[in-house]
Amino acid sequence: MTLTNDLLLRAARGEKTERTPVWVMRQAGRILNEYNEVRKKLSGFIELVKMPELAAEVTIQPVDILGVDAAIIFSDILVIPEAMGLPYQMLEGRGPFFPETIKTEEDLNKLRTADDDSLGYVAEAIRLTKKELNDRVPLIGFTGAPWTLFCYMIEGKGSKTFSLARRMLYEKPAFSHTLLSKITDSIINYLKMQIAAGADILQIFDSWAGVLPPWQYDEFSLKYISRIIDSVSDIPTIIFAKGAYGSRKSIGNTNCDVVGLDWNMDIGESRSLVGEEKTLQGNMDPAALYAGFDIIREETRKMLDLFGSDRHIANLGHGVYPDTNADSVKCFIDEVKEYSAKMRQGNY
Amino acid sequence: MTLTNDLLLRAARGEKTERTPVWVMRQAGRILNEYNEVRKKLSGFIELVKMPELAAEVTIQPVDILGVDAAIIFSDILVIPEAMGLPYQMLEGRGPFFPETIKTEEDLNKLRTADDDSLGYVAEAIRLTKKELNDRVPLIGFTGAPWTLFCYMIEGKGSKTFSLARRMLYEKPAFSHTLLSKITDSIINYLKMQIAAGADILQIFDSWAGVLPPWQYDEFSLKYISRIIDSVSDIPTIIFAKGAYGSRKSIGNTNCDVVGLDWNMDIGESRSLVGEEKTLQGNMDPAALYAGFDIIREETRKMLDLFGSDRHIANLGHGVYPDTNADSVKCFIDEVKEYSAKMRQGNY
Repeated sequence: MTLTNDLLLRAARGEKTERTPVWVMRQAGRILNEYNEVRKKLSGFIELVKMPELAAEVTIQPVDILGVDAAIIFSDILVIPEAMGLPYQMLEGRGPFFPETIKTEEDLNKLRTADDDSLGYVAEAIRLTKKELNDRVPLIGFTGAPWTLFCYMIEGKGSKTFSLARRMLYEKPAFSHTLLSKITDSIINYLKMQIAAGADILQIFDSWAGVLPPWQYDEFSLKYISRIIDSVSDIPTIIFAKGAYGSRKSIGNTNCDVVGLDWNMDIGESRSLVGEEKTLQGNMDPAALYAGFDIIREETRKMLDLFGSDRHIANLGHGVYPDTNADSVKCFIDEVKEYSAKMRQGNY
Repeated sequence: MTLTNDLLLRAARGEKTERTPVWVMRQAGRILNEYNEVRKKLSGFIELVKMPELAAEVTIQPVDILGVDAAIIFSDILVIPEAMGLPYQMLEGRGPFFPETIKTEEDLNKLRTADDDSLGYVAEAIRLTKKELNDRVPLIGFTGAPWTLFCYMIEGKGSKTFSLARRMLYEKPAFSHTLLSKITDSIINYLKMQIAAGADILQIFDSWAGVLPPWQYDEFSLKYISRIIDSVSDIPTIIFAKGAYGSRKSIGNTNCDVVGLDWNMDIGESRSLVGEEKTLQGNMDPAALYAGFDIIREETRKMLDLFGSDRHIANLGHGVYPDTNADSVKCFIDEVKEYSAKMRQGNY
């Protein structure tokens, strides 16, 4: 099976492409009316994640509506803690909430390893999506990084500082490593299942990378990400570690293929820290999509010029904000396609 | 009037000191039982800020109890928006909330410039504190940075992304600059009043520096901070811009005397970006104070070694977390004093 549009995979492998591929984090979601139509039929977000046919439907929407060069399976990073034995709720306007968290050795021992049984609904959604995509564009599978999942499993909800999770690293480093290792085992099973179901490339989201100093990030996060990447080497991998300014060099030293940059990371500095052997992904400021089309186009061109033609996958530097107009997202995507093609021809 | 202990001021000016001075962001607050005793007599935090005698009392508590080398006036960064005409509430466990925010030109035109009348209670608290401190240690005055106050005045409350405030920078840059300029005028009046009342050194807190890319930070934040610093050049100034990884070099190019580092900023890298002409402040991880005393002492020594003996003011890299044991804070402070004295004598 050859993909009609394999720009994303070729760019991830460092091959030359006729234009820069583009997709948008959180592209399947509240920015699309078509998504909201599906969503409002259901009682909640988690319900949608667990209905493979509807998950496949919303996964494909941005391919049809926005013209992105990849679909990303509609799911949630917190399905892993749930599959390990910690169920959660999604509170409207307040984010995720875990009634039970990990505090003691006993809590730790009770955790299961996530497997194909507990997460089969994601595999089913991937199979359905692949079938319906009919090889038009690649499908991105994903997971939360062990450190980010650790934060939720310890704190039970979002936090500005995740001080309880960080407390654990100082107070009980061995306990922390055991939990991180268990999460890692579950993630490896999960990603292997995603590959078997048809995922073409994988992204690891480390949303809370930014709360750790570089030495702790390397020890309590990147070590486990690296183990994951080495276990799923059959397809390309992307690391997106938001706020990991001080660890870009270490991320460049893992065996991943693509390094995602957040909107605050300087492109030239990141390239020199990450090295020439990786593809970079990102990193337009999602707040720029609130501006008029002229400014969106200008910011998009500025970004493309800084990344250059090779080894770049265009994206935002953070998930698209839910109150963004879909037309503005489309304007960004169209400008990437048009301008990056011109860049290759040298006539711009 | 000569201060008995002027270590902090000498270090800020780059003079040699017999040991490293130390204080702790949020040292006057919930970590101290003595503070909680005062606080529980009142209906709220904002009430305490506005009672000069009690504000002076809690300002001095950490000097007596923890042995810090400076007091910092007990107040709040949000007194400025309030003095400009936007009152706020402090919601228990949820943070600040502004019933009215700035949306239109009309809102902007209604704003006043803060003056000695509207903020006289802070001047009074400073005068009382100076009197009761009796020149034992210097008194730090402070303000929020224009960008951070802009965030609250636009959003009306805390936010993970401050996307509404960032939206304004793209949608209405001229409007944004007018508001930032008005805030800056108020801050300059406020800091001049603090100096006249007896403040010995000033810190500018830019808590939300980290949500802006470097070019925007320089244009919408640092430009105004620089204007403030140039207007209050009679006493030393400290900039603490949390998360401003990409702007450390530009911060080093302002006329401030001290640059505060957050706990994620690499010390050596920051020194080379900021240059040799500034004193650095920080930056122990506040989560390290959750560990046992041995680890606290070890982390403290590690930090002191990395900063070296000159041009350093020891502090945490963020405000002390409210659930930290006061004894652990004391352990950090004592270790700074003891170990940094040994460092000077070369016998450690």
